[in-house]
Amino acid sequence: MMAYDDSNVFAKILRGELPSHKLYEDADTFALMDIMPRGDGHCLVIPKKASRNIFDVEPDSLAAVMRTVQKLSRAVMKAFSADGVTVQQFNETAGGQVVFHLHVHILPRFEGVALKPHTGSMEKPEILAANAEKIRAALADS
Amino acid sequence: MMAYDDSNVFAKILRGELPSHKLYEDADTFALMDIMPRGDGHCLVIPKKASRNIFDVEPDSLAAVMRTVQKLSRAVMKAFSADGVTVQQFNETAGGQVVFHLHVHILPRFEGVALKPHTGSMEKPEILAANAEKIRAALADS
Repeated sequence: MMAYDDSNVFAKILRGELPSHKLYEDADTFALMDIMPRGDGHCLVIPKKASRNIFDVEPDSLAAVMRTVQKLSRAVMKAFSADGVTVQQFNETAGGQVVFHLHVHILPRFEGVALKPHTGSMEKPEILAANAEKIRAALADS
Repeated sequence: MMAYDDSNVFAKILRGELPSHKLYEDADTFALMDIMPRGDGHCLVIPKKASRNIFDVEPDSLAAVMRTVQKLSRAVMKAFSADGVTVQQFNETAGGQVVFHLHVHILPRFEGVALKPHTGSMEKPEILAANAEKIRAALADS
């Protein structure tokens, strides 16, 4: 099993060393906007406890992540009047993982709209901020 | 929220009305081969408790599913000498869901090998059986 390296961007966000568009936080998890979204409202849930991915995460930490994934899935459906949600979680480079702190992708989906490829280009901060506000409002109203 | 319809294929498999390439079972979850794999070793984890998808699943049931997803992820890495694992979970038709009983896809991944598209064509039963045997052996050895 590969070791956890705490220099990754999510570890930095959790330590407050980097900013994020925060959506939700509880004792075990943190949710934020993906800054390179594959669709409107693409967001992420991460555990606070250090783990690289599915292979090393503690089951309780993963369970907490999934509770938050459920909350966020319901919130993005409401926030964007979405038709569905795609949940993805990537492990190791071959599995699609880019940042080596476990994270779950939540992608609101719309009939007839394909996901954009992962281009590596950043979304405009004002768009991320506006979408984050919609999701936070849906969470507050749930 | 859409209602659960127990005429779906996973409900029938759980009731023993349809066969499957079973990999693992515990009090709360069941794991089986995907018969239309997007890559070698593509398997699924489902909860025994009825739930349509992420929107209605009980958190404890989802937590149990993810414990089994972790077990299976480790097992497929070993069984196929994989380089990574992609985990996917689809909700409603727009989100990619085809069978309306919650399920999590576990896809062993290999450097330089893309996932095959979901074509809807069935894999040969003998190949599914051989891959299932490899995964069960890896689980037994873990």
